[in-house]
Amino acid sequence: MTDIAISRAIGKRAQQMIDGLAAISASPDNLTRLYLTPEHKRAAELVGDWMREAGLSVRMDAAGTMRGSLPPGRAGRSGNKSLLIGSHIDTVIDAGRYDGNFGVIAGLLAVETLKARGVALPFGLELLAFGDEEGVRFPITLTSSAIAAGIFETPTLDQTDRDGITMREALTQFGANPEAVGNEAYPADSVLGYLEVHIEQGPVLERTNAPLGVVTAIASQSRHRIRIKGEAGHAGTVPMAMRRDALVAAAELIVGIEAIAKKDRKNALVATIGQMDVLPGASNVIPAEVRFSLDVRAATDDARRDAVAAILTQARKVEAVRQVSLSFDNVLEKPYAPCGERLTAAIETATSQVMGKPAQRLLSGAGHDGLSMAHLTEYGMIFVRCRGGISHNPAEFVTVDDMGLAVEALVATILELARQEELP
Amino acid sequence: MTDIAISRAIGKRAQQMIDGLAAISASPDNLTRLYLTPEHKRAAELVGDWMREAGLSVRMDAAGTMRGSLPPGRAGRSGNKSLLIGSHIDTVIDAGRYDGNFGVIAGLLAVETLKARGVALPFGLELLAFGDEEGVRFPITLTSSAIAAGIFETPTLDQTDRDGITMREALTQFGANPEAVGNEAYPADSVLGYLEVHIEQGPVLERTNAPLGVVTAIASQSRHRIRIKGEAGHAGTVPMAMRRDALVAAAELIVGIEAIAKKDRKNALVATIGQMDVLPGASNVIPAEVRFSLDVRAATDDARRDAVAAILTQARKVEAVRQVSLSFDNVLEKPYAPCGERLTAAIETATSQVMGKPAQRLLSGAGHDGLSMAHLTEYGMIFVRCRGGISHNPAEFVTVDDMGLAVEALVATILELARQEELP
Repeated sequence: MTDIAISRAIGKRAQQMIDGLAAISASPDNLTRLYLTPEHKRAAELVGDWMREAGLSVRMDAAGTMRGSLPPGRAGRSGNKSLLIGSHIDTVIDAGRYDGNFGVIAGLLAVETLKARGVALPFGLELLAFGDEEGVRFPITLTSSAIAAGIFETPTLDQTDRDGITMREALTQFGANPEAVGNEAYPADSVLGYLEVHIEQGPVLERTNAPLGVVTAIASQSRHRIRIKGEAGHAGTVPMAMRRDALVAAAELIVGIEAIAKKDRKNALVATIGQMDVLPGASNVIPAEVRFSLDVRAATDDARRDAVAAILTQARKVEAVRQVSLSFDNVLEKPYAPCGERLTAAIETATSQVMGKPAQRLLSGAGHDGLSMAHLTEYGMIFVRCRGGISHNPAEFVTVDDMGLAVEALVATILELARQEELP
Repeated sequence: MTDIAISRAIGKRAQQMIDGLAAISASPDNLTRLYLTPEHKRAAELVGDWMREAGLSVRMDAAGTMRGSLPPGRAGRSGNKSLLIGSHIDTVIDAGRYDGNFGVIAGLLAVETLKARGVALPFGLELLAFGDEEGVRFPITLTSSAIAAGIFETPTLDQTDRDGITMREALTQFGANPEAVGNEAYPADSVLGYLEVHIEQGPVLERTNAPLGVVTAIASQSRHRIRIKGEAGHAGTVPMAMRRDALVAAAELIVGIEAIAKKDRKNALVATIGQMDVLPGASNVIPAEVRFSLDVRAATDDARRDAVAAILTQARKVEAVRQVSLSFDNVLEKPYAPCGERLTAAIETATSQVMGKPAQRLLSGAGHDGLSMAHLTEYGMIFVRCRGGISHNPAEFVTVDDMGLAVEALVATILELARQEELP
């Protein structure tokens, strides 16, 4: 078990760095740091300075990702390979300060800690501070990790932001190099794996009183747009039996969707209707049309597909019984992305050891850079408890103690992997 | 039964007049005619011209209502009293052409028809073309009839429209007289009753294949604002069992409200959620808050109050079970307003006779000028079938034949009342 005084000191250092990064924002009133903006550049440069102080050799890649490299300290089984450790320094609008940023800082503090403890690793380390995970500026997420993983598609450079600036132009203005993004992928045989520390952004660890968790996978996800068309009418003059109320139909379906999602707890099924428009939207007019979003996630692709199929069956039943007309469009589909078993096992050993109790495995309902990196190498994630499960919000909060433990867990994971790399 | 050739000719004349009025609009693209606007004035003046042509003496009252008077043609039981007949010539935005306007025209054509048939009535007639029933310009409805009925409250003159113009200023600009509105009420002992012909604005008559209906009352109505506060969360990271989803709570309540409303068909109970806002409104965020409107109407105040109480009980149950917090505010309450039995009976006799089959009685779910006039005298209403029950929409449509029958029914009602006024 970790010496709490030592890990707390690391956590305090993490908090200072968190606050240092959080001061770099597009707005004086809140934290907003979008991809390829001047504030992204300043944050990347600060991270670059920290990397250099930690003894890494630093370069900014063609996509604006700050990369810090440490060569192997001694020989190992895998020769000259590197372990990648990263997260992102872009934020949503009016963001919390821990999301992404803490993962980058945890990597830095792990390198510092290993150095302070005189550890020589049998593999190299590559720290990555990605500039676009959130996908707020351009209509695409995970740009930076897609480039590092070699799955970036060049036409994406023509995507535009709200001001009509293409990603290509933004990269050039930033001082990065759009022409070279295709050359930035790590060769698959040069990497051992990808590790990321991230706040949970959910309430599971807090409820189970665990500072850290071992991520097993990023959930299977799909998004849908549902539209129900009924018939408008005067709220006072159309008898209940003659109505084709689009909102009551939607309400019935929403209650049904919840029931379907609750039935499959084993597969961590969740279904969310987050967005809804009711038309025409007057208090004395029976709704003619309701449009809403549906987000479904689960621990397996099959569980997610089965749930969507059950929801669609329910929707068709509502359509028939209520004589409304319904459209149901799939707008996004991300398959289940399991973490690598070797990394997961190493993280589990490390976090159990650091916490002094068995670590909890959990699914990540949110997407992360691991989704891209999985195309290059196996990935593993350590989740850190955050207060109330709140994220994407200025109220996002992680304790100093939990941050210290997270860094120690990352250190212990690296040491566990190093042990496995020992030459016989 | 009515001679269809004669009533159709009247209906054609009604259609011409409908089209003449519909040409007077604030917009070349649609029909929009708000209270005390230049187009209201032009429409009122056209109605004034028609009144004069029909042999009435005409004056515009202090509220902009065009009033046409015909003195009694002979002596009767009630002495010098007058029967009031009216409706409104203001419209909603992008309106249909029959709502209100047809009622004014029906009154005019009834006077013409009686004159053409050489009828001398034992009471006077007062035709009223109200300028504000809809309440679109100022935040109050039924201004004109409230003034005629003597229930207008003077502070209302200080209400402002969207441009900050007070009703007092608008009356002055219109050429009406805000200082005299208090003197425009009919003395209660000078009137026999108030009759109005109006399109149904609902689908009941069409479904029962009846061109006309006898209104029994204007429904009891209340409006409420309901707010449900739950807890926001990431759509992917909060397990179903840990959610306090404001939208699912609202959906459950909406389904429950429909069930409550459907249970009391006997009292023509209707409940409508027409307006809903879901916050924060992102597809990947569990809704933290839902605000929605509730409109409840019924054939009795008790039935309406019982339904609201049942809905509130249901809402408190949802609040407790789902651990959300709920507010439920009453924002409007209009008591049940029954039509006068004498007028209703006369209308029933008249419409049955005109249609050649028993007339259907029905409740008006919508509010009308009778709500004001009921404070002065008894009121009665003839409803006319409209296509698909559609109103407040350019697609509003009434056939020429139905309009002809409606005028004949109004004539027959006046003759029935005249029969009752015969001196012994």
